[in-house]
Amino acid sequence: MPKPPKHTESLTRLRKVEGQIKGIQRMLEEQRYCIDVLQQVTAARRALDEVALTIMRGHINSCVSHAIRHRDGAEKVEELMRAINRFVK
Amino acid sequence: MPKPPKHTESLTRLRKVEGQIKGIQRMLEEQRYCIDVLQQVTAARRALDEVALTIMRGHINSCVSHAIRHRDGAEKVEELMRAINRFVK
Amino acid sequence: MPKPPKHTESLTRLRKVEGQIKGIQRMLEEQRYCIDVLQQVTAARRALDEVALTIMRGHINSCVSHAIRHRDGAEKVEELMRAINRFVK
Amino acid sequence: MPKPPKHTESLTRLRKVEGQIKGIQRMLEEQRYCIDVLQQVTAARRALDEVALTIMRGHINSCVSHAIRHRDGAEKVEELMRAINRFVK
Repeated sequence: MPKPPKHTESLTRLRKVEGQIKGIQRMLEEQRYCIDVLQQVTAARRALDEVALTIMRGHINSCVSHAIRHRDGAEKVEELMRAINRFVK
Repeated sequence: MPKPPKHTESLTRLRKVEGQIKGIQRMLEEQRYCIDVLQQVTAARRALDEVALTIMRGHINSCVSHAIRHRDGAEKVEELMRAINRFVK
Repeated sequence: MPKPPKHTESLTRLRKVEGQIKGIQRMLEEQRYCIDVLQQVTAARRALDEVALTIMRGHINSCVSHAIRHRDGAEKVEELMRAINRFVK
Repeated sequence: MPKPPKHTESLTRLRKVEGQIKGIQRMLEEQRYCIDVLQQVTAARRALDEVALTIMRGHINSCVSHAIRHRDGAEKVEELMRAINRFVK
């Protein structure tokens, strides 16, 4: 079985996203200007996108690659495509 | 000046997103299956989208509407479009 | 009733998108490298995003502004939010 | 070398997207209601997303799988991730 990918980078990013989410809550409580709040929501969303892409990359380089090398891989690719599909929409 | 929109709904959602972000960190630490983690990242991202749309709606119904009624509003609409633009991309 | 927005800019862009879509078809028929094809699909999608944002801006500056000035506008804002929502997802 | 994926499905979809783009141009020329036009732009964008996902799937199942089986595949995975990244943003 392939070794699962290390998630150090994603964990660091997620802690930052958690901080951003808390910051947005504070901004709303302080009635800060909506456009400034929206900008922070956009930033948090982009950080989440980075996390998703990092996890995808790790998954392709470990599980999917392993399946492709040792079995036909088609099933793992389908599962990946469904995940990308859900993410994109 | 228009009263700023209440953010009760967005605050409730953001607390839920914060919980989701913490949950994803736990999933990564427990080396859970990448596709399951991705599904949670997708869910958190969608919840953030809802927050953004709720804030946009509040902003249009308060600040932007106020500007349109009392001035020409074009500047506020431009500012809003830039925010939507950043969000969509 | 408000004058509908002129769509010169969007029409120019859409003719360009039409050209891009035809170009992508040719690339697929010529079995061009998938990553290059994907890059063109991404470019066409971004051009479509620009069209959507331009139409939104025109709509807010004409119909939505008119409704806000002459009625309460809430209904038009809701309709707009539903359209943004469909577009974002 | 891997056989390139057949693009029958994507070509059919792209011809449909081309028709949608032409339809949107007509709608703008006929000054149709902006929200209805936006709905068609959203539909065309989704159809383009489907094309992108189908091309990605074909690429993973052919080129990327081939690279993973016969070389280490890391380079092809990186190239794919960059393409997904550009597409998502």
